[in-house]
Amino acid sequence: MADEALFQFLHNELIQYVYKSAEHGEMENGRCITKLENMGFRVGQGLIERFTRDTARFKDELDVMKFVCKDFWTSVFKKQIDNLRTNHQGIYVLQDNKFRLLTQLSAGKQYLEHAPKYLAFTCGLVRGGLSNLGVKSIVTAEVSVMPACKFQVMIQKM
Amino acid sequence: MADEALFQFLHNELIQYVYKSAEHGEMENGRCITKLENMGFRVGQGLIERFTRDTARFKDELDVMKFVCKDFWTSVFKKQIDNLRTNHQGIYVLQDNKFRLLTQLSAGKQYLEHAPKYLAFTCGLVRGGLSNLGVKSIVTAEVSVMPACKFQVMIQKM
Repeated sequence: MADEALFQFLHNELIQYVYKSAEHGEMENGRCITKLENMGFRVGQGLIERFTRDTARFKDELDVMKFVCKDFWTSVFKKQIDNLRTNHQGIYVLQDNKFRLLTQLSAGKQYLEHAPKYLAFTCGLVRGGLSNLGVKSIVTAEVSVMPACKFQVMIQKM
Repeated sequence: MADEALFQFLHNELIQYVYKSAEHGEMENGRCITKLENMGFRVGQGLIERFTRDTARFKDELDVMKFVCKDFWTSVFKKQIDNLRTNHQGIYVLQDNKFRLLTQLSAGKQYLEHAPKYLAFTCGLVRGGLSNLGVKSIVTAEVSVMPACKFQVMIQKM
């Protein structure tokens, strides 16, 4: 419980700081999202290196995705991804029905517009983790009902 | 291990971001330290609220300090403070012989000048935690040999 709280609080401070240090305006929102995403990317890179130190080599892309959904997600968010779907053509959808970084926000539509800033870091986290496992991707997130959340991973073929 | 890594990496990103978003110059270093300290303060406030939810009321100031050195420190840094000293007149010195946020830096004098930015957040963390337990204080840190570190807490009598 303590660790989760630490991560959550620190994550909140990060968001607040990034937004505070930017100037106001529509343009700036996008830049803040990008910054948070980039920080997530680097943290994801670092974490995946530690986590995979003692794991066997992955068989394929799907194997990598399963690792992210189970081990990686559990380490960071204390639960697994609830549902992983793929079109077998490089698109994966990871659904978390109770995403930890959104549980602090009230459910309902009132704060829905604020969801993206709480998801940007995690999008980066996934992208960074995958990147260090040799999988280049674009990761986006969408929320329809809080605190459920879907992360879409589009693999970039090289 | 995973949690520690997450906290460490996130903490590093925070430092880097705060310093990057500031302009260069001597003056700015002080402001960055203050910002990091303030973030620590708020995180400390939040954490201590969770941690003490089920603890008994503290007897006195020393009792509060012991809680910070044991339970609080262990939750955040995965070890206790190694040595707590006091002059019984409102000054406490908390010594950590292997402070987690410094272990990533190489020992020796080369990076000693960078130590303050790795300590500012934690100074705030302690100050924020104490503050929410009704103890107003000033917290400073000093390093003589990495990764050992001393935090000095000066209680502000009200």
